[in-house]
Amino acid sequence: MTRMRDCIFCRIIEGNLPASRVYEDETLIAIEDVHPQAPTHLLIIPRQHLATAQDFDSSHRQLIGSVFLAAKRLAEERGVAEQGYRVVLNCNRAGGQTVFHVHFHLLAGRPMRWPPG
Amino acid sequence: MTRMRDCIFCRIIEGNLPASRVYEDETLIAIEDVHPQAPTHLLIIPRQHLATAQDFDSSHRQLIGSVFLAAKRLAEERGVAEQGYRVVLNCNRAGGQTVFHVHFHLLAGRPMRWPPG
Repeated sequence: MTRMRDCIFCRIIEGNLPASRVYEDETLIAIEDVHPQAPTHLLIIPRQHLATAQDFDSSHRQLIGSVFLAAKRLAEERGVAEQGYRVVLNCNRAGGQTVFHVHFHLLAGRPMRWPPG
Repeated sequence: MTRMRDCIFCRIIEGNLPASRVYEDETLIAIEDVHPQAPTHLLIIPRQHLATAQDFDSSHRQLIGSVFLAAKRLAEERGVAEQGYRVVLNCNRAGGQTVFHVHFHLLAGRPMRWPPG
């Protein structure tokens, strides 16, 4: 699978940068966000390097679905599923994306406000 | 496909409640949010009635993937893809869910702030 040497998420996926890994399978990993915005704030990161959600094509449908099944499982494991959680994808700068390797934020453990940023 | 008579999104999908429909295919529709929080604020709604993201199982992977391909296409059509957008899923009350038929918010047209609510 293509890795980008200068991508911090690729380096984490390869094990070349430390991160608090809470889940992994063949297609994605989940880590704790280093700047948490809620009591639970995880990043669900596809192993495949895609810079932004604009790189998604029909071959990624299953992968994207797997992200939400992982979110569901992680929320259950942490006991926050029933209370509730939010999943956020930022695409490009105005969307709030700062690391250009597609990732999804899972936030829970407090009431999430509206608007979502 | 199962419809819930008291679900406003099922009624919109059936055509029994008005909505500004901007996209539809076999598995989902997209409408304008009636309380927009950004210049572009669409709801992408699976036709299948699932109350929350906790109802997702492995049979929904393709469907979830299709949501993000629709988001990409809608962002491109509106000319906001390059600038950026945010996709948000709220699950249950603390996540901010108010309509209990799974839906994804697509927001764009302004810089999205952090935290995401």
